[in-house]
Order: sequence, then structure tokens, then C-alpha cells
Amino acid sequence: MVLDLPTPCLIVDRDVLDRNLRAMAQAAAGRGIALRPHAKTHKCVEIARRQLEFGAAGLTVATVSEAETFAAAGFDDLFIAYPVWPAPQRAARLRELASRVRLRIGVDSAESAQALATAVPGLEVLVEVDSGHHRSGVAPGAAGALAAAADNAGLTVRGVFTFPGHAYGPDQQRSAAEQESAALAEAAAGLDAEVRSGGSTPTAALTGPGVLTEMRPGVYVFGDAQQLEMGTCGWDDVALTVLSTVVSRTGNRFVLDAGSKVLGADRQAWATGFGRLVEHPDARIVALSEHHATVALPDGVPLPRLGDVLRVVPNHVCTTVNLADELVVTAAGAEVDRWRIAARNANT
Amino acid sequence: MVLDLPTPCLIVDRDVLDRNLRAMAQAAAGRGIALRPHAKTHKCVEIARRQLEFGAAGLTVATVSEAETFAAAGFDDLFIAYPVWPAPQRAARLRELASRVRLRIGVDSAESAQALATAVPGLEVLVEVDSGHHRSGVAPGAAGALAAAADNAGLTVRGVFTFPGHAYGPDQQRSAAEQESAALAEAAAGLDAEVRSGGSTPTAALTGPGVLTEMRPGVYVFGDAQQLEMGTCGWDDVALTVLSTVVSRTGNRFVLDAGSKVLGADRQAWATGFGRLVEHPDARIVALSEHHATVALPDGVPLPRLGDVLRVVPNHVCTTVNLADELVVTAAGAEVDRWRIAARNANT
Repeated sequence: MVLDLPTPCLIVDRDVLDRNLRAMAQAAAGRGIALRPHAKTHKCVEIARRQLEFGAAGLTVATVSEAETFAAAGFDDLFIAYPVWPAPQRAARLRELASRVRLRIGVDSAESAQALATAVPGLEVLVEVDSGHHRSGVAPGAAGALAAAADNAGLTVRGVFTFPGHAYGPDQQRSAAEQESAALAEAAAGLDAEVRSGGSTPTAALTGPGVLTEMRPGVYVFGDAQQLEMGTCGWDDVALTVLSTVVSRTGNRFVLDAGSKVLGADRQAWATGFGRLVEHPDARIVALSEHHATVALPDGVPLPRLGDVLRVVPNHVCTTVNLADELVVTAAGAEVDRWRIAARNANT
Repeated sequence: MVLDLPTPCLIVDRDVLDRNLRAMAQAAAGRGIALRPHAKTHKCVEIARRQLEFGAAGLTVATVSEAETFAAAGFDDLFIAYPVWPAPQRAARLRELASRVRLRIGVDSAESAQALATAVPGLEVLVEVDSGHHRSGVAPGAAGALAAAADNAGLTVRGVFTFPGHAYGPDQQRSAAEQESAALAEAAAGLDAEVRSGGSTPTAALTGPGVLTEMRPGVYVFGDAQQLEMGTCGWDDVALTVLSTVVSRTGNRFVLDAGSKVLGADRQAWATGFGRLVEHPDARIVALSEHHATVALPDGVPLPRLGDVLRVVPNHVCTTVNLADELVVTAAGAEVDRWRIAARNANT
């Protein structure tokens, strides 16, 4: 690293990023599945453009304001994979968006279908199905009735979608991918489902052809410590790290200046800590405060020096990116660009 | 609530805020302890001004860039309670700051004392002491030697400080406050410590006169679910909530549109969930995704309706505020102002 930047800051290795983008695009194309990556991970116009250049069919977003950000940047095919509630001020924004871009939205109840139809007559929707994550979505067997209600209310039902979030755990990927396919197949049997959309980074390699017509992975662009610890990416696939400085040291522990206000506090029960370190793969971040990451090294491993700059791989890169204003883009260890995180804080 | 705002968003009850500010100022004054509140909680110039109006002696901040933000807004007495490492670009910023405001910085090693003295000759420092939190700081008995080294290097040692972070747990407040006082007393005996600084919101009520000359609570301005669950604030003391909308519901559960990108993912092991709800004190946020808070209600309690707007009390308000751009200020349930979170993302 030849970077002399104020720490903590987020750096992206452009070559690794592009390799990740190309690999996922090729994997989807090879199986005849459309790739509609989830832009909530990077929130960045430049990365979304690269995804489309590599062959993505459109973008997935999580919120109306993310959709507005990408629509303003010229993206014209957007799926809001969320059960949006059309409160009056949000309904007006949805109408405006739908008049400018091809917009699809998730729906998971007859009541919200009615409300969406009143807000935006003819709006295209996908029925959300719960494939085992138990967050939102209807049971697969209920998708047909909801689709009929939505159609009846005046929406244009294009198909079904699910998020197999229960794939986020050790050895959960295969069973979650199987449940995803089964749920989408059962749901699709109840309606005329042109779109059967699923997918996540941990299940991406297991999504076979046949059921899914579209997949929506997000994290694959950067990788993160969760993916590393699930085995769904390798160290060489990590494109985003947090540059941080050693500010304190004692015993077999030291403190980095990247805390929860930079990394995010995400920690699944099975995670080994609050992130990993590129330069010390055996180290663990055992505690995290707002501006302190306390790192434990195995016995006998020499501590880094005060002022040393190390790279942290955050646990969950989607929340890390949302905390920053820009990405420092590097190639061969040198800064080549800065990309704004245009949709940071686009939560409404 | 008569607010019609896009959710999720952060709202502050100005009357509760001012009551919290006044109460802490009076409690400190009544014990003869200077109040130097930690501005990392609110990151907001308007709130910092109110703190000074209520009698605070100056501000505490966590980073050089937070200090720069408040210095630019006219605050002239700042303590960076952090073991700042003066890398070259940061050293220049420290020199600039020290030339404009009364600046103090934490130091916890002879090596960083030497580096700080080289960067900013004569800089005022406080020696950081570990009173039991085991994050940064030297053992109380080592403070005298470090102070001598810092003085020798050319720094101006003003005293000692500690953060009793181990007070963050059920029934930990009294023992942590006692350890804090004992550590500061032992450390101060080794040097000429004009300043003996400690304090946190959970220990604030237990900080007796005698040892401490200064206290640095942060969270007290807003309260949060951690303080509620520790019993160190009540529901009536909560000044900041996150307005959020019910977007999905099934069984005894429903989903709110405030997820980890709004609330933050902080969850101590003893917390009952990822935050609390003003309108449903018995509900628990049992799962948190980036844009979904899954809330479980006790059996038999009716679910709210889709589109209902509820107020979430985040677990750790410092990280919640850092995720947003502004606070919507209310009085008697109506919006009266908007305050910018000026030091959001001021991590360097």
C-alpha cells in the first residue's frame, strides 16, 4: 500500500471489483438467469454502471429514495424489492418514478396491493414469497390468491420474488437455495409468473436453471468477512477494505481507529468477531466501540507498531458503505479515483 | 403525533432534550464537577450550544475531524478523548487546531507522547487510564511515569482521564463508578493532575465529589434503549426516537421500515432486542435487517395496522445519529426546526 490517506477510510481495489462483477455476470448468463444486482450494497452510480456494462439487466434497490437516486443518474429499469407502503407523500414520489422509468415493486398483502393500486394505477408488482427467512412475504401457496387480489385492484402482476436470507449461516447455503427454488416454483404455479426472482450472494453459486428467471445478489461486488467466514468468497475476492491506524497496544491486543461508526456493528451469532484483518488473518476483532476496534492476536504473534496502517474487512459491507461518503478507488495499490456513495442514507 | 414525514426519520423532542441538558448540568454543578459533555452523541452544533448555555465548561469529542467541525462553529475549548496518532497529515491538522482553540488530547503511551510532542510542541494532554474497561489507557500505577515521559518530550500534561465503559451492563454502574474514582485517584497521585476526568451517562448519577474534577457523559441528551434497559433513564427521558412505518404483518409479528441502516446494529449481549417501541413497551425487535425491523408482540396484543407510524427508541443513540443527516426537532408533537448533524462521518 502506497496510500497516505486520513484513516479510517474505505478503499476499493478496482481490479478485484471488476473481476467479481464479471464472474457473477458470466455465472448468471451461463445459466440463462437475468442478473439484477442489489444496489443497496454499493449505493454508487459508477459501480452500477459497471454492472450494466458487464451485462446486468437492471438494478434492484431497497427503498424509493434509492430508486430516485439511480433514476436521476439515468438508470431506467428498477425493482424495489421491498413491501413499500404508499403513504401520501411516498405515493406521489412513486407516481413520478413510474412515469420516468420501468418500475417494479414488491407486495406482500392484499391491503398494500389495494393501497398501491390507488396510489399508482397499473403499477407493476412482484408478489413477495417467504421461502424460509420469515421476515416478509406470503407463504408460497398464498401467492396466487394475492396475485389475483393485486390484479383485481388494478396492479400489473409480473411474477414472484423471494429473499433467501436464511442462507446467511454456516452450511445453510444449499438448503436455503433449495427452499428458495421450491418456494418460487410453488408460488409461480398459482399465477402467470413471467418473473421468478431470487438470489443472494451466498446462494448465487447454487441457483440452478429451471425455476429462477432472475437473481439479485448484492454483496458479491465487494465481499466481506461474513462471506469469508461462510466460505462464499475468498480473501482474494475482497474488493473493499477499511484502512485504519494502530492507535494503542498492550499485551497481545491492539486498538485500530475503525470502530462501529465506520465498520458498522453487525455481528451474526456465528461470526468470529467484528471483522477480519488482511494483514493478520488469524487476528480477531474481539470488541468494537464507536472509534475503537480491539484486536486480539494469537499468543506469540508480534504486535504491529503504533501508527501502522492495516486493512479491515468489515463483517457486513452493505452497512459499512452506508456509513461513508465516498470510496477511494485503487489500482495496483495506488489511488486512481473517488466514487461518491450517492445513495447513502437513502432510507425513505 | 401530527407529523407527516417520510419515514424512517429521526425526531427530537426539544422539551425533553432541554430537561435532560438542564438536569445533568445541575447535577454536575451541585457536586462541583465541571461538565464537558461528549459531542459524539449528537454531533450537532445547535445541541452543543444549548449544552454550553446550560453551563457546560467545554466539549469532549472523539476525533480530530469532530474537533474541526466544532471549532469551525466557534467552540473554543475541546478535549479529544482519544489516543490520537499524529500521522503527518493529521499532525498538520492538530497544529492548526491548537493554534485556534484550547485543545487537549489523550495519550496512553510514551511512544505516542513523543510523536505528539514532535507534531505539536507544547500540546496539552491528559494521560488515559484504564479503570476496568480494558480498551485503551495505562494502568493507574503507570500514569505518573507516562506523565513524566510526556512532560520530558515537551507536552503539557494537565491531568488524567478514564472512560468507565464497563458500566454498560445490568447492575454494573456502582462498581464501575467506584473503580473509576479509585483509578483516577491512584493515577493522580503520580503526577500534578489539575484535571481528573471521567464519567459516562450510566455512572453520572454515582460520580461523587472528591476525586473527579470533570465528567464527560454523552448519551444523556437523548437517552436510548440501552439506558432504558439498564435503568439509567426512564421512558419520559427519551428525547430522540425514530419515526417508522408498519410495512408488513403476520401472526404476532410485524415489520417496520427502520432497519440497521437507520437504527444501527448495536446490540449488547444483555439487550432484549434491537431497540424498543414507545407505543408498544412490551414489544421486542427480534430481528433487524438493513430496512426491516421485525417486531414481536406478546400473545393476544393486537397488531398495528399497515401504514401505522410508530416511534422506535434505538439501542445506542450515538450510532443512530451518525447514520442520519438531520434531526427533526419537535415541540408538543409539531415540527419546529431541523438541525443538521454537522459532524456525521467525522471519523478521521
